[in-house]
Amino acid sequence: MASVNPPRGMRDFLPAEKSRRERVLAVIRERYRAHGFDEIETPVMEEYSRLHAGIGGDNEKLAYNVLKRGLDADAIRGAADDPASLTDLGLRYDLTVPLARFYATNRGQLPSVFRSIQIAPVWRAERPQKGRYRQFVQCDIDIIGDASSRAEAELAVATLDTLDALGLEGGSIRINDRRVLDWMLDSFGFGADERPGVLITIDKLDKIGPEGIVAELRERALRQAQGSDSAQGSDSAAGSDSAAGSDSAEGSDSAAIDALEAFLRRPVTLDYHPYGERQIRKALPADAPDDIVAHLVGIGEAVAAARAAVATESGAGDIPLVFDPFLVRGMGYYTGTILELAHPSVDYSLGGGGRYDGMIGRFLGQDVPAVGFSIGFERIVDLVAEQTDAAAPAVVLVHDRDVPEAELLALKAALVRQGSRVRLEQRTKNLKALLERAASDGYTAFATVAAGTTAAALEVKPLT
Amino acid sequence: MASVNPPRGMRDFLPAEKSRRERVLAVIRERYRAHGFDEIETPVMEEYSRLHAGIGGDNEKLAYNVLKRGLDADAIRGAADDPASLTDLGLRYDLTVPLARFYATNRGQLPSVFRSIQIAPVWRAERPQKGRYRQFVQCDIDIIGDASSRAEAELAVATLDTLDALGLEGGSIRINDRRVLDWMLDSFGFGADERPGVLITIDKLDKIGPEGIVAELRERALRQAQGSDSAQGSDSAAGSDSAAGSDSAEGSDSAAIDALEAFLRRPVTLDYHPYGERQIRKALPADAPDDIVAHLVGIGEAVAAARAAVATESGAGDIPLVFDPFLVRGMGYYTGTILELAHPSVDYSLGGGGRYDGMIGRFLGQDVPAVGFSIGFERIVDLVAEQTDAAAPAVVLVHDRDVPEAELLALKAALVRQGSRVRLEQRTKNLKALLERAASDGYTAFATVAAGTTAAALEVKPLT
Repeated sequence: MASVNPPRGMRDFLPAEKSRRERVLAVIRERYRAHGFDEIETPVMEEYSRLHAGIGGDNEKLAYNVLKRGLDADAIRGAADDPASLTDLGLRYDLTVPLARFYATNRGQLPSVFRSIQIAPVWRAERPQKGRYRQFVQCDIDIIGDASSRAEAELAVATLDTLDALGLEGGSIRINDRRVLDWMLDSFGFGADERPGVLITIDKLDKIGPEGIVAELRERALRQAQGSDSAQGSDSAAGSDSAAGSDSAEGSDSAAIDALEAFLRRPVTLDYHPYGERQIRKALPADAPDDIVAHLVGIGEAVAAARAAVATESGAGDIPLVFDPFLVRGMGYYTGTILELAHPSVDYSLGGGGRYDGMIGRFLGQDVPAVGFSIGFERIVDLVAEQTDAAAPAVVLVHDRDVPEAELLALKAALVRQGSRVRLEQRTKNLKALLERAASDGYTAFATVAAGTTAAALEVKPLT
Repeated sequence: MASVNPPRGMRDFLPAEKSRRERVLAVIRERYRAHGFDEIETPVMEEYSRLHAGIGGDNEKLAYNVLKRGLDADAIRGAADDPASLTDLGLRYDLTVPLARFYATNRGQLPSVFRSIQIAPVWRAERPQKGRYRQFVQCDIDIIGDASSRAEAELAVATLDTLDALGLEGGSIRINDRRVLDWMLDSFGFGADERPGVLITIDKLDKIGPEGIVAELRERALRQAQGSDSAQGSDSAAGSDSAAGSDSAEGSDSAAIDALEAFLRRPVTLDYHPYGERQIRKALPADAPDDIVAHLVGIGEAVAAARAAVATESGAGDIPLVFDPFLVRGMGYYTGTILELAHPSVDYSLGGGGRYDGMIGRFLGQDVPAVGFSIGFERIVDLVAEQTDAAAPAVVLVHDRDVPEAELLALKAALVRQGSRVRLEQRTKNLKALLERAASDGYTAFATVAAGTTAAALEVKPLT
């Protein structure tokens, strides 16, 4: 027991940080509730078989699994060729798989359109790195039972309102549809079996640009044509999220790559505003499927109406949606709309989500439409400005060593009753340091207490 | 994947129950903060070696352990004789062991007297039974760095104030000191090595009475005298919590049992009020150690002063403490004061705590005084009366199928902006059932929406 640190990749939260996190969570919870979502909670553990049913994508490999209780030596020896037999439970790696299980369990007690809030930690045994933790909080809202574009609009409006309430005005949502991607790749000539691999490459568009995309696809096609099967080779530096797809990716047909390249390089200026049918059709190859375009347009109309209904004179204006035909998002379970939250202050996404109409059926044995949005709490909490609870005064009572305990407790109780937050501190030689530390803990005032000081005689002064 | 239930002994929380739990937690958090405690958070996992260092008592056996990642067949085979080598982390079974680790990790950034709040789940692989769960929430407050009786008084005042704020007025705290128990048993003639076993028997006083206590001790002494070592035999029905102690309990000396019996049967009427030196000395054998009595008296004086400072005319009066010389409490790590929260509405305890001055030193290598109090959140939440958030109106918009999405989202946004919580519901044939379900979900009003209904034309009616 040499080290006294928390486990690798996990964090302690000290009072200042914990109180900031709780404050942000309270705003999120309150806003989501205002928009008609209801909070639920599931156990942190789910059955192993449920967490490893192929729904969780790459996250399944990152799950923490819990050792069965009461294993004897024979059982352990027998598990050498079947490690999964050592475990019966695991810690959830996301909130979507547990939600699907929750819905299947409790459907009879839920409204026909169920809007859920989940605010809870998840665990992933990832390689620890800056800004990436093995335990972190997710804030998800989901709408189960509504196939219409209204569901996406409710999620988008609630999310943007929450961001506004946190002081992060100006957020916007990038939007696409998995079916658009599939149709586009099909129209370029990519076969159904090669599309997953192509999508993984396209997902890097922001990082490597159109040239990089085309080069990567050509190189892979070449290797494939040469009969080389070591598809992982040139990709290994790109990180684990590409490895799974590259393994199975077929080398793409050269004509399809040419068609994609021509489309990426076509001389068109995309005016991203206003969001609507004209812009969506302009961003896509000709003859995009009407039903998918109509769904995307419907989301925009509903979001626009909601924003207009509450717009101030100054803030009317734009629909905060941006159509991006090459938005992919990683999770394999999305079946329709995909969404990603952007904010001008950062160049990474603050959250995302999408439609996963197929997943509930895996648990329920009956398909139910579902769409969700998860905001990246750990990223957002870092952006929210420091605030002190100006509402309630917080007073440090700095007392001499000889003040009787009963007197101290009586003074404290009287101030607490008056609505203050109160901490007792015995006076130290360095009073200044003591007061500075109290101020950094969020205290706003102090009073000194000698033996015999009464509540009436207490002089409360501001901590500057 | 036949069953879609949560794992055995664990619970889903549906919206009504989740919102009730969050409401109770918000009150607890707010009150504890008012009393100068600061909330912290630790990861749910701690290192295996730390959770199994002998500090957690019987709970160590109930820990969920996490399988190491990346074990190969050889490592698993090699673990047959050393199952602990399969695991490196475990889920915490209480909040005290993690707090001791947290304090050792972060001491340099904490005030010299550190008052912590922890509100978080813990996990124990217990046999599931009514009212006992494998995942449950604990609410702990602890004071680290204060050896004086003021610390116990601050914990007691904050706890009782919190209970009051939850509408559970009339709580009281049973109090004793482990050193009192030790001294008493010593004075009766029990040797140091037999006292732990005797304490486990005395802990059953409420259930089996003085006669039961004496009978159990005599029987054990007899078995011991006969050389029988099967001490567990007659105890097995008493449940697992006695097994650990019985194993090692020495048969007690007959004279010591006689002395205990004489004390238990002495003709004395204990007037439990008012709490104070007179009552404490009367409840103990003669010549109780002055320092321990003074510590107990000091707690009472400070609590009394705090309560008097905020007493209303009607509610002045009693000190809500009761000295109980036979209060034991299970946890092995207590070293001084022990406390247990009682409430007239129930015959079980609502929480408890005590001094554990030795534990921090186990991690820090340097002794620091510490005392904590844990309220039984799962028990308390069941006692708190149902309340609806009367504060904010909650409106269900019942709309016809043909209302355009954009109109609906605009109406919803306008009401949300006005401060309402808003849920959209498509009208069903059975409107009454729909409204009843909304009312049971906490909604207080509704309005019907047809195509073309404007915000101005919306008639919001109360849900009765």
